[in-house]
Amino acid sequence: MAKKNAFYAQSGGVTAVINASACGVIETARQHKKYIGNVYAGHNGIIGALREELIDTNEESAETIAALKHTPSGAFGSCRYKLKSLEESQGEYERLIDVFKAHNIGYFFYNGGGDSADTCLKISQLSKTMNYPIHAIHVPKTVDNDLPFTDNCPGFGSVAKYVAISTKEASLDIKSMCETSTKVFILEVMGRHAGWIAAAGGLATEQEDDAPHIILFPEIAFNKDTFLTRVNHTVKKHGYCVIVASEGTRYHNGTFLADAGSVDAFGHKQLGGVAPTLASMVKNELGYKYHWALADYLQRAARHIASATDVQQAYAVGQAAVEMAIAGKNAVMPAIIRGEGKTYSWSIQAAPLEQIANVEKMMPRNYINKDGFHISEQGRNYLSPLIQGEDYPPYGKNGLPLVANLKKVFVDKKIKKTFLI
Amino acid sequence: MAKKNAFYAQSGGVTAVINASACGVIETARQHKKYIGNVYAGHNGIIGALREELIDTNEESAETIAALKHTPSGAFGSCRYKLKSLEESQGEYERLIDVFKAHNIGYFFYNGGGDSADTCLKISQLSKTMNYPIHAIHVPKTVDNDLPFTDNCPGFGSVAKYVAISTKEASLDIKSMCETSTKVFILEVMGRHAGWIAAAGGLATEQEDDAPHIILFPEIAFNKDTFLTRVNHTVKKHGYCVIVASEGTRYHNGTFLADAGSVDAFGHKQLGGVAPTLASMVKNELGYKYHWALADYLQRAARHIASATDVQQAYAVGQAAVEMAIAGKNAVMPAIIRGEGKTYSWSIQAAPLEQIANVEKMMPRNYINKDGFHISEQGRNYLSPLIQGEDYPPYGKNGLPLVANLKKVFVDKKIKKTFLI
Repeated sequence: MAKKNAFYAQSGGVTAVINASACGVIETARQHKKYIGNVYAGHNGIIGALREELIDTNEESAETIAALKHTPSGAFGSCRYKLKSLEESQGEYERLIDVFKAHNIGYFFYNGGGDSADTCLKISQLSKTMNYPIHAIHVPKTVDNDLPFTDNCPGFGSVAKYVAISTKEASLDIKSMCETSTKVFILEVMGRHAGWIAAAGGLATEQEDDAPHIILFPEIAFNKDTFLTRVNHTVKKHGYCVIVASEGTRYHNGTFLADAGSVDAFGHKQLGGVAPTLASMVKNELGYKYHWALADYLQRAARHIASATDVQQAYAVGQAAVEMAIAGKNAVMPAIIRGEGKTYSWSIQAAPLEQIANVEKMMPRNYINKDGFHISEQGRNYLSPLIQGEDYPPYGKNGLPLVANLKKVFVDKKIKKTFLI
Repeated sequence: MAKKNAFYAQSGGVTAVINASACGVIETARQHKKYIGNVYAGHNGIIGALREELIDTNEESAETIAALKHTPSGAFGSCRYKLKSLEESQGEYERLIDVFKAHNIGYFFYNGGGDSADTCLKISQLSKTMNYPIHAIHVPKTVDNDLPFTDNCPGFGSVAKYVAISTKEASLDIKSMCETSTKVFILEVMGRHAGWIAAAGGLATEQEDDAPHIILFPEIAFNKDTFLTRVNHTVKKHGYCVIVASEGTRYHNGTFLADAGSVDAFGHKQLGGVAPTLASMVKNELGYKYHWALADYLQRAARHIASATDVQQAYAVGQAAVEMAIAGKNAVMPAIIRGEGKTYSWSIQAAPLEQIANVEKMMPRNYINKDGFHISEQGRNYLSPLIQGEDYPPYGKNGLPLVANLKKVFVDKKIKKTFLI
């Protein structure tokens, strides 16, 4: 295979470890100079390709690239921008081909979630429909943990660890003061359609009666009476009640408990405000003093307490993506496969994008216990390995974590025509 | 001095490091068996003394006591319960004397904030007014950092570190996606009357133009127009705007931006909801996509990213409290004194409770910059040393932090009469 350059882009909501995948891609590409020339990173994701705004990662030192492994956020910039079908957006696809041709790009690594898998699949199809040879590999990333095939999604393990630890710490706080102060604490976490992140809060329960006492999943229809009865029972029994609520908590008819009303670029409803809604119910119906927290971006950006397992896997999928591309694979995603046996183990295998794009993996019902308010043993067995190990970033003398400081040298533009997004 | 037992209690809102102070008290007392017999800890704070519910810390192993150093929350239980004046609550004070007499308690260590300093002072006055010899030492603790005399308050440094790191991490997240997604992010932090915690968010600004771009302090009257103009200007200039807002943010007339309407046991208004209020302003007046987070208890319980400086100081004030008591001091608080010179250093000195009780230390105006939207160099110089160093707790194989597992053996009651709170 002739030597080609690679294009790498970050897509959608960023995570604490997406840059670890970038690190895996770039470091591995550097080890295979025979096949891959330069890795160009899209400035702000796929938009960078459309605008011909390519960051030359060759200009970054080995130390800077290594530092990506402990840098949260999307170091090259990410975007919420979904390419439509080939028919609907022919201009965009033609532009991508023009840019790829101009910069001799033969490898496309797209680091994102379900929507990005779809884009990646479309790019791979350009090989046929537009007669441009390109190897398109999707690098999995999403805190929502909703990609199929892969055992879990890089980014999720670190959110899960953050949520489990935060739930545990806040629960100890409330427990120690509940006699004369707050009785009910609610932590609202991300998870639009699937309760994976809320489920992770359940890991804080290490012994019977440990908080959280109630987890609200999008998968289980919310019933106000059942909920309040459980809260009241818990406060009467333990003196306090800790609730982890998914932002996607909804009634039987599908209505979200709180709906901010706005819509993101992918047409998804933007949520927020389940915790205050629940707090009001508790206050009005039961009269208990409450507190609530909404972690929002803090949870997905929390590189300071990333799961070591997650960091390793995020790096590994980046590495595997390059190895698969060099091996001639196309339209695949490196998926994490969980080993058999009691001790947790994992490996990477290629999974076909055609069966991944636009498929949302829901949490199995048997990961939730019978009454629908906590995780089951199966759920715990699945989740627990994903938060194991601590991978601390280095800190400066000023007490703040150190992050990669990219030079971001742009590749000279070769196409005269500008492209308006 | 005849050998006496000691009583130790935790009071008010707990912190990530109040148990490190407990550890300092108990370990130091154990080194001075000649003077101090047993250390009895109040179950749920001062209420434990009133009810004669005393936890015998002698029943806890050295390992368990050492583990307090990395256990967040109030391990012996805390409470929001303020003793009134000696005249108003004679029954309570008489009860305390009865319990102290029954258990041969000659040392009183009270670990709390301003209200607790007041209680501790009153206990010390029992020596004279009720003719009962007791050495009452206040062990400082409050995330609000509002105790006078001491350079800072144990508990604050760890919240400051959590807020600075969280602000930095979330800012990197938003910055990397702002072109096509969220433009404005608001983090609401604690701080009812003083902006110390909000100020700590300012440490995330390491270089010019770094987020946060706006800090809202209780000390600076909120002006909606000025605020929105600044937000708009920042988004236009940088593409995004990060705001750290104190829960105590208020208008010129003193009205809080958001007031949950309830009142705690000390008569303080319970706040919450500044972030959504600001978010609505941004959305309605500027139309920017926003996100907001409310850290609430997560920030004060976050032992997982405690400041090493804070942990050391929390332990040191506990240790010094015992040493001061043995030295015959009464009605004092071990205060942290900052050394002169460019390199940060600190020592402990006794400060008189009479000048501490009910005095709230505000943040100096010169810690805030001229326009009132960020910290000044003086503010940075004050805050920066307090978040230095990381003191990670040990973790179990399951990826969760290990905490002290107290047996909590209660001392046999010696008084027949029960006391109703």
